[in-house]
Amino acid sequence: MPSFNPPLRTLMGPGPSDVHPRVLAAMARPTIGHLDPAFVGLMDDIKALLRQAFKTRNEVTFPISGPGSVGMEACFVNLVEPGDTVIVCRNGVFGGRMKENVERAGGVAIVVDDPWTRAVDPQRLEDALETNPQARLVAFVMAETSTGALSDASTLVQIAHRHGALAIVDAVTALGGVPLDVDGWDIDAIYSGTQKCLSCPPGLSPVSFGARALDKLRARKTPVQSWFLDLNLVLGYWSGAARRSYHHTAPINALYGLHEALLMLHEEGLEAAWARHALHHRALRAGLEAMDLRLAGADGERLPQLNVVGIPDGVDDARVRQTLLDDYDLEIGAGLGEFAGKAWRIGLMGQSASRRHVLACLTALGSAMAAQGRPSDCGAALAAAQKVYAA
Amino acid sequence: MPSFNPPLRTLMGPGPSDVHPRVLAAMARPTIGHLDPAFVGLMDDIKALLRQAFKTRNEVTFPISGPGSVGMEACFVNLVEPGDTVIVCRNGVFGGRMKENVERAGGVAIVVDDPWTRAVDPQRLEDALETNPQARLVAFVMAETSTGALSDASTLVQIAHRHGALAIVDAVTALGGVPLDVDGWDIDAIYSGTQKCLSCPPGLSPVSFGARALDKLRARKTPVQSWFLDLNLVLGYWSGAARRSYHHTAPINALYGLHEALLMLHEEGLEAAWARHALHHRALRAGLEAMDLRLAGADGERLPQLNVVGIPDGVDDARVRQTLLDDYDLEIGAGLGEFAGKAWRIGLMGQSASRRHVLACLTALGSAMAAQGRPSDCGAALAAAQKVYAA
Repeated sequence: MPSFNPPLRTLMGPGPSDVHPRVLAAMARPTIGHLDPAFVGLMDDIKALLRQAFKTRNEVTFPISGPGSVGMEACFVNLVEPGDTVIVCRNGVFGGRMKENVERAGGVAIVVDDPWTRAVDPQRLEDALETNPQARLVAFVMAETSTGALSDASTLVQIAHRHGALAIVDAVTALGGVPLDVDGWDIDAIYSGTQKCLSCPPGLSPVSFGARALDKLRARKTPVQSWFLDLNLVLGYWSGAARRSYHHTAPINALYGLHEALLMLHEEGLEAAWARHALHHRALRAGLEAMDLRLAGADGERLPQLNVVGIPDGVDDARVRQTLLDDYDLEIGAGLGEFAGKAWRIGLMGQSASRRHVLACLTALGSAMAAQGRPSDCGAALAAAQKVYAA
Repeated sequence: MPSFNPPLRTLMGPGPSDVHPRVLAAMARPTIGHLDPAFVGLMDDIKALLRQAFKTRNEVTFPISGPGSVGMEACFVNLVEPGDTVIVCRNGVFGGRMKENVERAGGVAIVVDDPWTRAVDPQRLEDALETNPQARLVAFVMAETSTGALSDASTLVQIAHRHGALAIVDAVTALGGVPLDVDGWDIDAIYSGTQKCLSCPPGLSPVSFGARALDKLRARKTPVQSWFLDLNLVLGYWSGAARRSYHHTAPINALYGLHEALLMLHEEGLEAAWARHALHHRALRAGLEAMDLRLAGADGERLPQLNVVGIPDGVDDARVRQTLLDDYDLEIGAGLGEFAGKAWRIGLMGQSASRRHVLACLTALGSAMAAQGRPSDCGAALAAAQKVYAA
């Protein structure tokens, strides 16, 4: 059996996104022990860089040693006690996963549904909280990777607080790609992933917990059901050299990669990164529309980093994606849940939010559709995108 | 803030062990999507290689996307139902962690204690099962990283089965370092880690489940409390191209590394790797004894890959370890739990089980102790070790 040498893909799906060689090189640096003083220094630097990325001064800000789904579970098992009522706003697949998490933690989930591709409706949340004054928590996905919808986290958190509930925010796809201000918006608990707009390989989940969330954790009457995710234990491990206690063994080399990726975000500047995602989204959209393709969703509610594109009648979803992969080494995402077979998901996340990516995607997509007999003017699409860049 | 460039350590603690450049290089290969056909092929190869390493034909053999502690939790939350009685054999720190896991999963843990440094006593397990015929599960640590004790997994599993209980085996430190035969010994559920005798960076937990364990899982009356670790869902993700379903996003690059490390184990041969660990253990022991240092534990119960060495009177534990780190870039482990300040833990795991490592450790340790006024004849220690190699 030979070593595994992956094909050289261009990643424009819902994550992972393209990883910069700086990050890959960082991950290949020699492994050190997780109790090494140098490693403790790295942990401190990562916490500081994550606080910048989340825009928070929360002391409890660190990466959980598992993918984004684990960050989600960490928030729910720590903050939900058996019997707690949790309002879950669901406008896609990941809201549904939140409901699962609430119920497995012994909570009562009250689901507020919004149409797929639409943002969470603040009024429906308000109504649900009025009908359920016993609700202790509100949970929603700020950037729904399954639908491309961006919700107004600031407003939703305010509503939750007005009703005495804490807010758990899914920022897996949001972090680094759209404006996010944990302290300014007073978010109580938030989790993200590394393989989206941070452009790291998957495997870590940055989280941040504010004072109210920690108070709720401390006031628990029942133990956290997960040993691995019990913040009371994990915090000892991430609490700096003076008070550090053994818990598990952190994924050392993955943390080298996260450090480098966060450093790159810091060098670019958070606002600049948000602006870059917005720019390339506008260019992609202009190009797609020039080929008569339409983005799902409503104006002002679309994620720049995740573009859901309706598949035209007569075009074979799977065949197009296979052609992109085979002929262009280009990965775009299939539709998920309700959108399976009906939409593509084109990611412009982190390193994949670039002019090179936008132009390559328009070219490949136009050509693949033309090969299926659907006239698609690549030249017009490229010109439309370039016009956005020239403006 | 600069990039993080780790110091070049020699890792001889309780893990992580030294990672071969082949594995580091593999981790730096370009990231591909977790739904890429090439990635599905990689998953299949990893499963095949893991079956070889575990010596099993269990279909359900794959790496959980989290460190060894997550593998432990995966076994307990899937196999323990609320109210189940579980006999936990505890002869070190990690047996204690198993108890925590049983209780958080709603089970009743009956702990059978054995002295630290000693193997689990089969007779005490037998007695506990006779007193508790309601026990559904037995759990024990085959290779206790906190004490260096090797337990007789084959015998313990037989006893469990004779009493109608299933056996969960912790093989975090065992896999690749000592004889282990999942099918031959009829183990029901087993978990390991990558950063010990497989010499990968930490972050993944290989597991394997046999038919009886899967039957117990299928017969559950309550849902698994963890969404992320629910095998009913995870198995869909790891079940091969034809039936694969989305669950989480696997840590792609960490899996490149695991594949390469398993390939290296396969090239060396499992039996050869076990013999290598045994050889370097004998050499290390001869060298330590020549300096009048003693290994904890009893003959026939010592792990070759994890050597617990009593700290002589008058020698300052922390100062010695600091000297090794500062002057030799050599990491050995501190004592854990009962052994804090009383013993060192010297790992000879995976790539760290080599003549170079043994000789470097003897030299550094002798010199560091001599600097504290304890006469330690490095020359004699090296000669004693070399004599083992010459034999």
